[in-house]
Amino acid sequence: MIKVGIVGGTGYTGVELLRLLAQHPQVELRCITSRGEAGVAVADMFHSLRKRLSLSFVDPRSAPLDECDLVFFATPNGIAMSQTQALLDAGVRVIDLAADFRIKDIAEWEKWYGMKHAAPALVAEAVYGLPEVNREKIRQARLIANPGCYPTSVQLGFLPLVEAGLIETDHLIADVKSGVSGAGRKAELSSLFCEAGDNFKAYGVPGHRHQPEIRQGLSLVAGKPVGLTFVPHLTPMIRGIHATLYARIAREADFQAVYESRYQSEPFVDVLPFASHPDTRSVRSANLCRIAVHRPHGGDTLVILSVIDNLVKGAAGQAVQNMNIMFGFEECAGLTQIPVLP
Amino acid sequence: MIKVGIVGGTGYTGVELLRLLAQHPQVELRCITSRGEAGVAVADMFHSLRKRLSLSFVDPRSAPLDECDLVFFATPNGIAMSQTQALLDAGVRVIDLAADFRIKDIAEWEKWYGMKHAAPALVAEAVYGLPEVNREKIRQARLIANPGCYPTSVQLGFLPLVEAGLIETDHLIADVKSGVSGAGRKAELSSLFCEAGDNFKAYGVPGHRHQPEIRQGLSLVAGKPVGLTFVPHLTPMIRGIHATLYARIAREADFQAVYESRYQSEPFVDVLPFASHPDTRSVRSANLCRIAVHRPHGGDTLVILSVIDNLVKGAAGQAVQNMNIMFGFEECAGLTQIPVLP
Amino acid sequence: MIKVGIVGGTGYTGVELLRLLAQHPQVELRCITSRGEAGVAVADMFHSLRKRLSLSFVDPRSAPLDECDLVFFATPNGIAMSQTQALLDAGVRVIDLAADFRIKDIAEWEKWYGMKHAAPALVAEAVYGLPEVNREKIRQARLIANPGCYPTSVQLGFLPLVEAGLIETDHLIADVKSGVSGAGRKAELSSLFCEAGDNFKAYGVPGHRHQPEIRQGLSLVAGKPVGLTFVPHLTPMIRGIHATLYARIAREADFQAVYESRYQSEPFVDVLPFASHPDTRSVRSANLCRIAVHRPHGGDTLVILSVIDNLVKGAAGQAVQNMNIMFGFEECAGLTQIPVLP
Amino acid sequence: MIKVGIVGGTGYTGVELLRLLAQHPQVELRCITSRGEAGVAVADMFHSLRKRLSLSFVDPRSAPLDECDLVFFATPNGIAMSQTQALLDAGVRVIDLAADFRIKDIAEWEKWYGMKHAAPALVAEAVYGLPEVNREKIRQARLIANPGCYPTSVQLGFLPLVEAGLIETDHLIADVKSGVSGAGRKAELSSLFCEAGDNFKAYGVPGHRHQPEIRQGLSLVAGKPVGLTFVPHLTPMIRGIHATLYARIAREADFQAVYESRYQSEPFVDVLPFASHPDTRSVRSANLCRIAVHRPHGGDTLVILSVIDNLVKGAAGQAVQNMNIMFGFEECAGLTQIPVLP
Repeated sequence: MIKVGIVGGTGYTGVELLRLLAQHPQVELRCITSRGEAGVAVADMFHSLRKRLSLSFVDPRSAPLDECDLVFFATPNGIAMSQTQALLDAGVRVIDLAADFRIKDIAEWEKWYGMKHAAPALVAEAVYGLPEVNREKIRQARLIANPGCYPTSVQLGFLPLVEAGLIETDHLIADVKSGVSGAGRKAELSSLFCEAGDNFKAYGVPGHRHQPEIRQGLSLVAGKPVGLTFVPHLTPMIRGIHATLYARIAREADFQAVYESRYQSEPFVDVLPFASHPDTRSVRSANLCRIAVHRPHGGDTLVILSVIDNLVKGAAGQAVQNMNIMFGFEECAGLTQIPVLP
Repeated sequence: MIKVGIVGGTGYTGVELLRLLAQHPQVELRCITSRGEAGVAVADMFHSLRKRLSLSFVDPRSAPLDECDLVFFATPNGIAMSQTQALLDAGVRVIDLAADFRIKDIAEWEKWYGMKHAAPALVAEAVYGLPEVNREKIRQARLIANPGCYPTSVQLGFLPLVEAGLIETDHLIADVKSGVSGAGRKAELSSLFCEAGDNFKAYGVPGHRHQPEIRQGLSLVAGKPVGLTFVPHLTPMIRGIHATLYARIAREADFQAVYESRYQSEPFVDVLPFASHPDTRSVRSANLCRIAVHRPHGGDTLVILSVIDNLVKGAAGQAVQNMNIMFGFEECAGLTQIPVLP
Repeated sequence: MIKVGIVGGTGYTGVELLRLLAQHPQVELRCITSRGEAGVAVADMFHSLRKRLSLSFVDPRSAPLDECDLVFFATPNGIAMSQTQALLDAGVRVIDLAADFRIKDIAEWEKWYGMKHAAPALVAEAVYGLPEVNREKIRQARLIANPGCYPTSVQLGFLPLVEAGLIETDHLIADVKSGVSGAGRKAELSSLFCEAGDNFKAYGVPGHRHQPEIRQGLSLVAGKPVGLTFVPHLTPMIRGIHATLYARIAREADFQAVYESRYQSEPFVDVLPFASHPDTRSVRSANLCRIAVHRPHGGDTLVILSVIDNLVKGAAGQAVQNMNIMFGFEECAGLTQIPVLP
Repeated sequence: MIKVGIVGGTGYTGVELLRLLAQHPQVELRCITSRGEAGVAVADMFHSLRKRLSLSFVDPRSAPLDECDLVFFATPNGIAMSQTQALLDAGVRVIDLAADFRIKDIAEWEKWYGMKHAAPALVAEAVYGLPEVNREKIRQARLIANPGCYPTSVQLGFLPLVEAGLIETDHLIADVKSGVSGAGRKAELSSLFCEAGDNFKAYGVPGHRHQPEIRQGLSLVAGKPVGLTFVPHLTPMIRGIHATLYARIAREADFQAVYESRYQSEPFVDVLPFASHPDTRSVRSANLCRIAVHRPHGGDTLVILSVIDNLVKGAAGQAVQNMNIMFGFEECAGLTQIPVLP
């Protein structure tokens, strides 16, 4: 049983983290902070948690975060970087669900996130929390940079091919579609039901923050810089990411076997039979990535389909998975819910 | 640990039952039948169950149903009534999620369901599986008629007022809105995305099968026949029922206190603070009914709002709750999932 | 050909008004004002208007509104009441799509709208723009209070019964469901796709501003105060209102014939065959109200179903209809679009 | 004024064609056939057409099709090919909205459509009805093969680049997302609200009928066979297609200028400013294709975004546009509706 605190937690990532942690057998939720909602019972804001969570939001200044074993940051970008060092000094481990520690190149980070980084040294220390790549490092880590939702779906999709050197990596294409919850629980015009509903659009095509994060991850695996065209889209559903990935074959192989072998012992990656079509609802509310491999018309282009729930394997679920690894719990503890379908 | 069989199970009620039972600590799923899908792995039809359920559908004729302790019927109406007696004779208990045993008046049933009833004697024996009313009878029952989705939301909403004799019961009004999954997983034009989406309509206003079921339940409680105008509507969401109930006050009382007191020990009914507005997503995927009491402008009309997930408290979840009661399990066993929001 | 100005116009009512007016054969759009968007081309904000509308938003202070024959206010409540007198003095006629002039009882208005009324005299002069009731007065009016969306659907639904004295009017019930565009194009949490989507809820049950507006209209017709329980709901669709109305019969009649006769010469009210179920999409994007009459089980309660597109017959379309009447155009001019289905 | 008949017409393409033709100033709708619905008033099936269309469906055998100037086939594939010759012989011109005459290579067609072609000679004669490519041929044609919805969006998107020889055409990628109405008004499980709603998936990745159609069109323009990876997806909205197109640059140019120049006199293609993000709703219910050109990070890959309403520019609207050209009407006649937004 560990003591856990949450900083932030009024957003969708926060309420999802609460849902998972409230059902986790080895977690005692100690506190959750919110500047704006201090004093409000969490269950009054999120009725789904009525009778299941008795915590109220507390002001960050009075929260006993340093008494926790672990603190999750479910905050906007730029918060965790200024508070993490003090927690680490107090012996508290940290998982940041925002982007503060994801990109190793500080200049690159500052360009995309539009602010000066407050803790470059911690960026160097932070472990990128993609268990399928970094499980051993996560086990030892004090500080985890929890991956972004798009980067999780795209990296898990490309990983086996890049690791095995089977594709040309200078012109990868990731055409990715996200549900609207990826935009967060913020009062913004573009996330309104009447703007995002019955509508489909791309956004951020000239440049999106997740592009350098994906490139960094795949380049590390490839052992050289990869080229990536990344196009995110908004699709009128609440949860779910569907990545459609394109790559030209560099070397022949039994591609399906490559995927099955790479992920055979991964508890949260499911490789479907060759030429399947995973739908996002098949992972809804669960910590899962389902992947299918295609080679249309037997040509020289592979198409990989990769689906996750952006709030679970793309955020809160992966954070809990990282916690489980860090604290030596069973990796699946608290993460065994079956997807909700329909 | 009990052995459980399912007859039917390719519909939404079926897959939801599978989701709940696959996670239930005291259930061993023995078999699931389907005439049309015999031989197909359940997880190939419902990808959400991949790696969680290894059963395949079997032909009803070769299914070892009589070796089970309990059989659920998740079939169209008219199937359970012809197969239940044999199972009971073999010592198997039965929960029917369809309507075969819900209405005691055989003539009334035959009128609404358009067929001759095959087992009137069993109708007399069957216990109506609304635990909040019949918990003790359920404990002893061999055969449960699991309530309909609309009837669950409406009866739980009106119950405290009718029991206490606080309202005029000759002109009850139930204006109820259902998600599309209530229509089942059937290839019908009216359930198409492009017919039911971005659209709202009433249906069955001249007469709907759930009206006599609700009337029967409330009349029993009232001790006299009640009058009920019941208008169901289709709303463009997948899961959820929202009942808006209207009744004129017959006798003054602290209505909020009446509800809180009536349901204080019920694990799956949650009375919100006075004048709240429950939303259907606050119970999505969970076995819960949330209720709010209103008295607009302090007038002589009460408005009760009652929400459930039609597939859970309105079908599969309530069936599992009934199972738990019948077999002496903890009533909440396998039913503790927190609603998925957003 | 008349010269028309619009004050406001960055909301959903505004863009709908633009869509209709840009296609109207007798309207020359002169200017559209917006404090926040001055200088922005309207078609850059609403791509649907690209190549169809070359106007840019102008600052209200520099807009040549007094050169117009007619000015529409598509503003938040409280704007029109302070600007209308000057326009009228300049010989400009005014249609207010907000609520400033809808309620004759100033104290009642101030209670519901939470501000002091700036122009009580104009309230007295304003004609309530429901053509099916006030066509002749509209023809002569300088100032029109365009009805609310809920009030349009509910009044048109009850009107024939109340006028003919066929129902008990002390306990009318209006259970009404609205698409999310009724909440406007405002960055509010409750209107987010992930809050309003796949969800259903009532709101404002203790009291809603449209209740007194409806009561005023029906009381005028009834010749005495009516009693009304009004419960609005939010349904996950973009456009559309579905009113389900309940009334007890006071006097027998051929109710279907009453409706058909009442609306036979109304161009924008369509009475369906007895016991039909109109769906909201059957009026989507069109200036239409479709109504169906039900008498469930031949009892003493009538159920009336009434559907409109909240942005058209519930707002912009009705405003154009009022304009047509005021200026002696054909009442259907610019309003003949066939509903978009699916 | 021409006399027009429709064969089929109970599907979404059919009702959309009826919506457009019923408002067309030069069309007299003479008859509409349906084997299954003969005798039913069209407006009873589609309430949106009440009071706007008085036709009833007639049996195909008794329909006066040969008295028409033009017959539209809005039928499943395989119908038009067996009835067209007789109509042509009777002097009737034909526009087929299905696929019977789209692919010139008969063997290829038979492979994808799974049947023997009944009229190969007519395939040779038929003009592919993409006005932006074949306007002059359409003017002279007796028989038009109206393009598929995906092919329209993809061809219009790639066309300027392929014509000008600016991209490598051996590895084109078209990642395309369609609303559910593209699947037609058929009672199929996969099109149910609860299957397609709140879900996203690819389909037909191993091979889709529209791939050879697109390849044929682009190859003709390129003057050599092009290579194309085509991945269609189903997105939870009713109308709309969003094509995201990827191509590597072969030769530098001012790509934005190339698009603007190519489409400057096209009434139904709108090139947005460089690096824009068109959303599908900006063309909802209108005969429009909006296109945006991107060059992410100034690299060697172009990303073209192309949106249409699949039922209008992707089907019925384009058919009417073809009709206008064939009969010398103004090309925009009956097609000037402004998109419905929101």
